[in-house]
Amino acid sequence: MKSIVRNLNYYLSSDKDLAKRLHEILGFTPYRLSLFKTAFYHKSMNNCSTGKQQQNNERLEYLGDSVLSTIVAEYLFSKYPNKDEGFLTKMRSKIVKRTTLNSIADKMGLDVILSEYSQGKMSKSMLGNAFEAMIGAIYLEMGYEKAKKYIIREILRRYLDIHELEDKDDNYKSQLLEWGQKHGREIEFKLINRFKFDKRDRFLIGVFIDSIQKATAEDFNKKSAEQMASKEVVQSLQLD
Amino acid sequence: MKSIVRNLNYYLSSDKDLAKRLHEILGFTPYRLSLFKTAFYHKSMNNCSTGKQQQNNERLEYLGDSVLSTIVAEYLFSKYPNKDEGFLTKMRSKIVKRTTLNSIADKMGLDVILSEYSQGKMSKSMLGNAFEAMIGAIYLEMGYEKAKKYIIREILRRYLDIHELEDKDDNYKSQLLEWGQKHGREIEFKLINRFKFDKRDRFLIGVFIDSIQKATAEDFNKKSAEQMASKEVVQSLQLD
Repeated sequence: MKSIVRNLNYYLSSDKDLAKRLHEILGFTPYRLSLFKTAFYHKSMNNCSTGKQQQNNERLEYLGDSVLSTIVAEYLFSKYPNKDEGFLTKMRSKIVKRTTLNSIADKMGLDVILSEYSQGKMSKSMLGNAFEAMIGAIYLEMGYEKAKKYIIREILRRYLDIHELEDKDDNYKSQLLEWGQKHGREIEFKLINRFKFDKRDRFLIGVFIDSIQKATAEDFNKKSAEQMASKEVVQSLQLD
Repeated sequence: MKSIVRNLNYYLSSDKDLAKRLHEILGFTPYRLSLFKTAFYHKSMNNCSTGKQQQNNERLEYLGDSVLSTIVAEYLFSKYPNKDEGFLTKMRSKIVKRTTLNSIADKMGLDVILSEYSQGKMSKSMLGNAFEAMIGAIYLEMGYEKAKKYIIREILRRYLDIHELEDKDDNYKSQLLEWGQKHGREIEFKLINRFKFDKRDRFLIGVFIDSIQKATAEDFNKKSAEQMASKEVVQSLQLD
């Protein structure tokens, strides 16, 4: 009996703490608190302390990733009525990419909640994942229109410098070359293979750092293949 | 003066025709007809007959692509409450992929409208693009919640066999091997390169049809690289 009471207290105080923290961060107390709790549960966390199986955040992350992408797509569509879809697509990928989301989540202070749940076993990608899962929870809590307004006003406008992103270099090859120069590493691009596909030339390009192959990519266009391979290296090394 | 009247008549009759066709296909007459007109304008079409610059459908396609992806994401999220995000992601990509969208657009009869605008210069991908652009127009016309209900009820449930998609083979390597056997072509997978990345082995795999290289892909896992390279070939050859 004592243990039931203890567990009950544990739940209440833990959920109360979460509700308080979320109110500080989001400016509102979620009605469906359990959804937000789920948003911070990475699959690597086991919940031995309560003995209850807690659902992890992967399904919410799947939903939130998509919802965020659409909200950002529409935000840019309205903000830039005269820009073509190439510009809009590039801007969107600058916003929804992992490093940007990690940084937003960090500025919001989600790391505090996450570190409490994860008991210290925290990686950077867990932060971005929890952020996406939280977007999923906000969407399920508010519906699309309200979630859109909230996310644009309270998250994107507050934590994102859109004009800085506009100017941000998305030339991965030059980013990689700059990084190489700064750190005294030799960056090389080599044509590994060239073959015919649909009667057109197709190029397989490799990126080498200090003569060690780091990534490859292929395309009908050599420069595009170089960009794609560079992107992979830049993202793995988290240079951007 | 005569020519102005003639042009005016042309516009009216053309827009009336479009409104009628859309009513037959969608079951409603759009309030913002010009959006739907834009949805069917591929950038390759010039609009000499009216002398007016018609906006092409690329921006709407960018928006519609994202909106559709989120509607499908949420539809699957609710439909399969006990499936993990891996299953949901796979199902979504089966639904939003080019060949599925082309087939939905075809069943809906969008090819009729498109062929009128394109004066015969129609490719298969133009159909899927117009479909996505039309989803963008439906979204701007109705807002998210109504568009979601409409698209699920009148498009996805009507033109898509979701249980067939569940069972559909997403093993690209086996699809490719079957295709080779059926058409008497020799399919080979070769290890082109093996290198270290972050101290782990990384494999570069090539797919060859009758000894001609058709695609490559790299991954830490050989089987994944084979799947990725096979997927590229299957999609280029439109086998799926």
